[in-house]
Amino acid sequence: MPELRQDLVRGNWVLIATDTALKPRDFPMHKNGVKFSSTNNFCPFCEGNEAYTTSELASLRENGSLPDSPGWLIRTITNKYSGFRLEGELRIIEDRIYQSCNGLGQHEVIIETPEHGVEFHHFSREKIGTVLQMLKERYNVLARDERVKYIQIYKNRGLLAGASLEHSHSQILALPMLPNSLRGIGDYYGKNRRCLLCDVLEEEKKEGKRIIKEEENFVVLCPYASRFPYETWIIPRRHNAHFGDISQGELISLSSILFAFLRVMVAYLNDPAYNMVIISAPLNTGDAAGYHWYLEIIPRLLINSGVEITTGIYMNPVAPEIAAHMFRERMSKEPF
Amino acid sequence: MPELRQDLVRGNWVLIATDTALKPRDFPMHKNGVKFSSTNNFCPFCEGNEAYTTSELASLRENGSLPDSPGWLIRTITNKYSGFRLEGELRIIEDRIYQSCNGLGQHEVIIETPEHGVEFHHFSREKIGTVLQMLKERYNVLARDERVKYIQIYKNRGLLAGASLEHSHSQILALPMLPNSLRGIGDYYGKNRRCLLCDVLEEEKKEGKRIIKEEENFVVLCPYASRFPYETWIIPRRHNAHFGDISQGELISLSSILFAFLRVMVAYLNDPAYNMVIISAPLNTGDAAGYHWYLEIIPRLLINSGVEITTGIYMNPVAPEIAAHMFRERMSKEPF
Repeated sequence: MPELRQDLVRGNWVLIATDTALKPRDFPMHKNGVKFSSTNNFCPFCEGNEAYTTSELASLRENGSLPDSPGWLIRTITNKYSGFRLEGELRIIEDRIYQSCNGLGQHEVIIETPEHGVEFHHFSREKIGTVLQMLKERYNVLARDERVKYIQIYKNRGLLAGASLEHSHSQILALPMLPNSLRGIGDYYGKNRRCLLCDVLEEEKKEGKRIIKEEENFVVLCPYASRFPYETWIIPRRHNAHFGDISQGELISLSSILFAFLRVMVAYLNDPAYNMVIISAPLNTGDAAGYHWYLEIIPRLLINSGVEITTGIYMNPVAPEIAAHMFRERMSKEPF
Repeated sequence: MPELRQDLVRGNWVLIATDTALKPRDFPMHKNGVKFSSTNNFCPFCEGNEAYTTSELASLRENGSLPDSPGWLIRTITNKYSGFRLEGELRIIEDRIYQSCNGLGQHEVIIETPEHGVEFHHFSREKIGTVLQMLKERYNVLARDERVKYIQIYKNRGLLAGASLEHSHSQILALPMLPNSLRGIGDYYGKNRRCLLCDVLEEEKKEGKRIIKEEENFVVLCPYASRFPYETWIIPRRHNAHFGDISQGELISLSSILFAFLRVMVAYLNDPAYNMVIISAPLNTGDAAGYHWYLEIIPRLLINSGVEITTGIYMNPVAPEIAAHMFRERMSKEPF
């Protein structure tokens, strides 16, 4: 059974696989290069290879096809390499100076398409909408479990964004605690009794220079303290703590924005690796005040160096005002 | 003039280059690959190319050769791409909800050898000692400036450790504040009135299973909450806040340990990219109580994914007990 251990220097938790260990040759990287682990052209996420994954938890299927067989459009399974299990209760173990707990949680993979090589930024608006709908449904299923305190939705596109498989997929991780790194939102509310993201929207609309696009339900912008070059946030105008409460109208809007923005971003940045993450409120704790869900898009153009790993101080060579200007110009030419 | 901006979601600071911006084509990465920026075989760090760098701040030279000319063994220059300048005072600017400050600090590069392709883990014990001596001297010069509140020493080896040049070098970054991510050490002292690293040493010596090597002045171990596979810490036995106060005996010991350990690590992990960082105490603040300098070695075998970037919760597939066992066996066969 894997465990979460507290890093006393940094305050955060680390998931440690205590049963099995990867051997040095199992890692995809060497000093200057990286490769996908499945080099023999076999992909467990392709249609027809359902037997090579864990059983599906949910799927969108045509023609009454059976679970774990071909005929699906989207398929959600358990991440079989993850140590998280949503079984039993949280057990915090104090071992003199150290603290650990069991890996209570759930880690799911959403295989977004049966077709290998068709990527999220190639999808139609409608297809993006069905992926978002699946993410919303899985979020809400997991959020109902009282043991789940936070849900992280994320997508790794490309090896240099941390993907281990090329086939287009997203992931959902349900955790037994709110990660430390997101406490700033709650701290801001504690100090100001105002929602940080609502205040950011108000401030940015006044300034204008970091805004890429405004539409009915969302504002797209490069954040004031962008950690990564061309980092972009998509913030819903409506104050709403949980991604799971996204409305149908918002979901359609978000699909259109992602459809247009990702095409612009991928073309302008020369097909980069990227992450998409949805930051949402703590669950089942009574501490959601001041949280407001939003989506971050992070092109991975630089590798974190020793200074970023250690200090958490990022060095970003592209000011968000410049990044927003570049994207704004290109987005204005897109049909929307 | 570049600026540091506070990230309100995460609490940390980000250095933003506000003058110039890298163009998408200037970045070394694409979706699955990465390359060094100097592809035309010209290296500004090689002997004879001194005119292509900033003027040297310090050097170790033979034969009375002149500054910024050939004849050096180690050479320290300003990082010319960095925005940090140790000029004037810290100016904190409040702009409604946002906070920024000027990039007050100094960023130096230590070119460790005139020979391209000879890496830190190829150096003799004596050569490693002269690099550590230079790092100590530069640390102490910068620490005397009252405006400097923290100094981060770090080394990026390989593109996948964030290096932009291949030629062996280390860096020193003097900052106007203590990074948030290191506050855990001070918090531990505030709560327990004990040094975290002294307590870690005591605890680990009792347990033994995460220790790689013990010698007179240092203990080498894989930390309890290792964020990265095969993460290794070298901790001085003597409680001492600042790396700049390392004794001559400790410096010689540390050179021998690095000489032996890095050869074992590089061979066992198949020539990985890696970072070395020295974590030391806050400076010129009166808040150094409970800090105890130590060195971290981080092989970069995995790329951080969306979940690590967002939540700060690392997933480590190699338990530190297993990593320590592998290294301990191999270190026991090394002449020491």
